Amino acid sequence: MYKVFGDILSGNCYKVKLLAMQLGIEHTWEHVDILAGETRSKRFLALNQNGKIPLLALPDGTCLPESGAILWYLAEGSALLPEDRLARARVLQWMFFEQYSHEPYIAVARFMVRYLNQAESHKERLAEKQQRGYRALDVMEGHLATHAFFVDTYSIADIALYAYTHVADEGNMNLHNHPHTRAWLTRVQAQPGHMSMAELA
Amino acid sequence: MYKVFGDILSGNCYKVKLLAMQLGIEHTWEHVDILAGETRSKRFLALNQNGKIPLLALPDGTCLPESGAILWYLAEGSALLPEDRLARARVLQWMFFEQYSHEPYIAVARFMVRYLNQAESHKERLAEKQQRGYRALDVMEGHLATHAFFVDTYSIADIALYAYTHVADEGNMNLHNHPHTRAWLTRVQAQPGHMSMAELA
Repeated sequence: MYKVFGDILSGNCYKVKLLAMQLGIEHTWEHVDILAGETRSKRFLALNQNGKIPLLALPDGTCLPESGAILWYLAEGSALLPEDRLARARVLQWMFFEQYSHEPYIAVARFMVRYLNQAESHKERLAEKQQRGYRALDVMEGHLATHAFFVDTYSIADIALYAYTHVADEGNMNLHNHPHTRAWLTRVQAQPGHMSMAELA
Repeated sequence: MYKVFGDILSGNCYKVKLLAMQLGIEHTWEHVDILAGETRSKRFLALNQNGKIPLLALPDGTCLPESGAILWYLAEGSALLPEDRLARARVLQWMFFEQYSHEPYIAVARFMVRYLNQAESHKERLAEKQQRGYRALDVMEGHLATHAFFVDTYSIADIALYAYTHVADEGNMNLHNHPHTRAWLTRVQAQPGHMSMAELA
């Protein structure tokens, strides 16, 4: 059986949980507490030298880090990862976009507000993260104005982008000016087996 | 024929050029000047709403952004992208690692030093980038102590990580304490058709 090391309140970990549930992949879950330094413990670093969650352990014990690689590995052969060469590259396009242009701002703003309680003490830095986060939301909004999902049909690209977008409010951000993105959130929530982060926590 | 929009001195663009040359993929190259704001021009934003290079135009004009997605698309079916399911996930593991834990520090340190001339004026911020960059190099070093390449044989994961690592000195960083990484650079340089960024510029 698969085992996931993670924290369900981390969007990157939630992605893996959501996919596993939607594909009916049996797994156990070991909670790892980042704030308590558990990703930097000797035991954990032996499993993932980069000291990050999520981490997937395959049934034979092989460990695979990086949420994007885990999603790709688990979704292979399912309807959530298309077969067409260009469509697959598009899935990666949006997953790399999420990790480079979206997560470092929207997830970090949320981390600052919700976990570090820095909304007042680090106002300027937070505002910068939010501003760049809105830039990522603008790119999503532009795409979603003419597309129901990021690539043809619901895929791991949607899961990757949904994770931190649906809790952007926890970083004191809002989607008031992003109606197409709000409508997409609703479409993602209507997928079979969908559960929000709050429902899983 | 393919067309690449890029700047050969950008590591993310160089990755695409190097792969295309090693696979013998015919293409034209249109230089895009980031510092002159050309990635934010109306014409360019119509091709890639995220305003970033590299951007690959397929023979039919379809545009694909994100270096990782472009590498994946072009390498599909070649020896530089393995077929095994776990090996493919490992390639993505290292490509996501590069974009999330390596490039934002090592490439940004280089950009600050070489292009913005901030080595003195932004000492503290630069030191922070370098420190986190060294953390990424440590992870690479640990892996390369027991592996010749990042995944089994030379692949697009090596190309992705080589790009900014081989010019880390331009961000006032060095590999003195990373002998396995230096040996890996030499192995990458020995691959057929290899050219460094300086040779292509």
